[in-house]
Amino acid sequence: MLVSFEHCQERDHLDPLAGCRDAFDLPPNQIYLDGNSLGPMTHRARAQVQQRLQEWQADLIAGWSHRQWIDYPQRLGAKLAPLLGAKPHEVQVVDSTSLNLFKLACAAVLSARAREPARARYRIVTEQGNFPTVPYMLEGLGRLATDIQVDVVSRETLCAAMTDETALLVLTHAHYVSGEVFDLKEMTSKAHAQGIQILWESHSTGVLPLNLTQANVDFAVGCGYKYLNGGPGAPAFLYVREDLQAASSSVLSGWLGHREPFAFEDAYAPGEGLDRFRCGTPPVLAYAALEGALEIFEGLNIDDLRKKSLALSELLIKLLEPALQKRALTLVSPRDGALRGGHVSFAHPDAQRIMAALAQDGVVGDYRPPHFLRFGLSPLYLRYVDIWAAAEKITRQVDAVAA
Amino acid sequence: MLVSFEHCQERDHLDPLAGCRDAFDLPPNQIYLDGNSLGPMTHRARAQVQQRLQEWQADLIAGWSHRQWIDYPQRLGAKLAPLLGAKPHEVQVVDSTSLNLFKLACAAVLSARAREPARARYRIVTEQGNFPTVPYMLEGLGRLATDIQVDVVSRETLCAAMTDETALLVLTHAHYVSGEVFDLKEMTSKAHAQGIQILWESHSTGVLPLNLTQANVDFAVGCGYKYLNGGPGAPAFLYVREDLQAASSSVLSGWLGHREPFAFEDAYAPGEGLDRFRCGTPPVLAYAALEGALEIFEGLNIDDLRKKSLALSELLIKLLEPALQKRALTLVSPRDGALRGGHVSFAHPDAQRIMAALAQDGVVGDYRPPHFLRFGLSPLYLRYVDIWAAAEKITRQVDAVAA
Repeated sequence: MLVSFEHCQERDHLDPLAGCRDAFDLPPNQIYLDGNSLGPMTHRARAQVQQRLQEWQADLIAGWSHRQWIDYPQRLGAKLAPLLGAKPHEVQVVDSTSLNLFKLACAAVLSARAREPARARYRIVTEQGNFPTVPYMLEGLGRLATDIQVDVVSRETLCAAMTDETALLVLTHAHYVSGEVFDLKEMTSKAHAQGIQILWESHSTGVLPLNLTQANVDFAVGCGYKYLNGGPGAPAFLYVREDLQAASSSVLSGWLGHREPFAFEDAYAPGEGLDRFRCGTPPVLAYAALEGALEIFEGLNIDDLRKKSLALSELLIKLLEPALQKRALTLVSPRDGALRGGHVSFAHPDAQRIMAALAQDGVVGDYRPPHFLRFGLSPLYLRYVDIWAAAEKITRQVDAVAA
Repeated sequence: MLVSFEHCQERDHLDPLAGCRDAFDLPPNQIYLDGNSLGPMTHRARAQVQQRLQEWQADLIAGWSHRQWIDYPQRLGAKLAPLLGAKPHEVQVVDSTSLNLFKLACAAVLSARAREPARARYRIVTEQGNFPTVPYMLEGLGRLATDIQVDVVSRETLCAAMTDETALLVLTHAHYVSGEVFDLKEMTSKAHAQGIQILWESHSTGVLPLNLTQANVDFAVGCGYKYLNGGPGAPAFLYVREDLQAASSSVLSGWLGHREPFAFEDAYAPGEGLDRFRCGTPPVLAYAALEGALEIFEGLNIDDLRKKSLALSELLIKLLEPALQKRALTLVSPRDGALRGGHVSFAHPDAQRIMAALAQDGVVGDYRPPHFLRFGLSPLYLRYVDIWAAAEKITRQVDAVAA
């Protein structure tokens, strides 16, 4: 028996996160299930950008010190840390996910070289068929450092590929299509048991707990513009466990990563802790939007966000059950919520057409080639009634292409 | 005989660029001689940021395609190209100066490896004592690629350091303290004559002509937030001469640099031309400010900007002549305008104190250690009367510390 609209209204009524929706400036007549690609704008994001514009106008160069623009990477890193289950000084917000991945993979490789100079560990292992910036960046690293070998292998052969020649394992926490999550703690332990360091890439920060400290993760990176709602191309984050920071070397060693950037010394000396992973001058307006967006998370608990996101995806799957039973749609994501990230995906031969029709009909999701429909379940602004209405429209469009 | 205030008024009256000042939202009661560190806000920069905020609010994910956010690197690169004396497809706006420097230095190194696999050319030469992000980034490259040697040498020994083992020469066009400019064309020819590629870093884009095509330059990078007024931490640019693009490989090979980023292919394939040097998702709000700022340059000629900037620095030096003659101040920049970039620097034992006092007195410049006063002469918003008033205040503060 299907869930009724009234039942969804009741759940919204009881939802402790319901009030978060007011923080967002959502476009009317749209059910936005694409916050896993680009989160919507919050009122605070807009206000912070306006404020930075005023500061640029009035304070000019003095803004860097008087308005603390220069500290943005540390300040936002510390704000983000609780969502990652990390300590404030273990996180900085800087550059893009791809660049941070490169920085930390290089740091791991350099520390393996330093530990084992006989080239004992010179391989990086990563997964094939996941979001491709990971293998692309690692291959770039390998083009420059020819002593490093990058092994891009299927999920099934990951463990076999991890040998005593492996320095680093790089994994994306939730699969970008299926949403299937790795057991972060278990994979981290497995890597460590073989003397391998691990770097997690998380597209689902803000909706999926990472518990980095608890899982003893070495390195992590992730993005600011999806579930964190930091704006298009928002700065990304990087995490390095505190005991690894002193020995971590940054290859992208720009002037702002120097111990004393404003001394303009000829000789490079790494900044304290994660400061060394800063590179060029931070884009202040982009940081401002993320700053505003992160204010919404203050006082919230990542486990509560996860709980609601899972309830929303559970509801969507349940409401689409008739279509699934007719085999009109196939569920690509794991049916078990514990194995599913912040989004849920379905396969359909006409996926691209359906997604375009849905957009016309006021439901926005993502098409991913060759035939996937992907829906993001952000707990901050989505209501249970939105999922109810979306499911109805999805069913209608799936029926329409079959007709 | 000193130049009179009335004479300066007359020059402003006759100045064909005088109207450009109206494009800026300048704070009152301030003479801003620090546009070489952070350019001031234009009305168009603010308007473009506001517009992007509206698009983010209303269009959400569709903004990437419908509003062409995704094309920002190419679009702004093409707008910038005339100021560099380059072709539109030879320039893209992306990431930071430091990162672009890394990308292009790697491209040069990889192409040298490919051309001469016997490790014939494995050295990168750069100048000591110039803006240090250049040696820092190159040293980072050398930490990862241990077959590459970086030689950081004094300006006097640059030519001696260029040998048949050198793959790349990396130079900053105008010295960040003295403002002394290299003869870009001559140094480029000198490098080429020895089979060495050249990468120019330009802090003075927007005020100093580079004539990249005419000088047959291989690679260049530079910054968007100084004389281009793109906002704090604005995206930077990179230039690769068209005939070198196809063979140039990007080591920072993120997903947006792929030939078909939205096909999410497992195998990396470089994007067309300079597209391959894109990496992560572009920070749209930061691009917006630069976009607005670049609108001001439309219809202007870089040679006219250079001419006025030189006239302003010439005037400043002339008005400070009495202080220079008393040896209260020393001119650090070349006296010959042809050898001087967009700023002019003076030395004084109490430079830091003087610069702080000047800021209180409404004249903003930069202090650079150990004892330099640096003033940027941006031709777009500075008037001759501003220089007159600034010179009077500088003289007064120099006299005050002597008293």
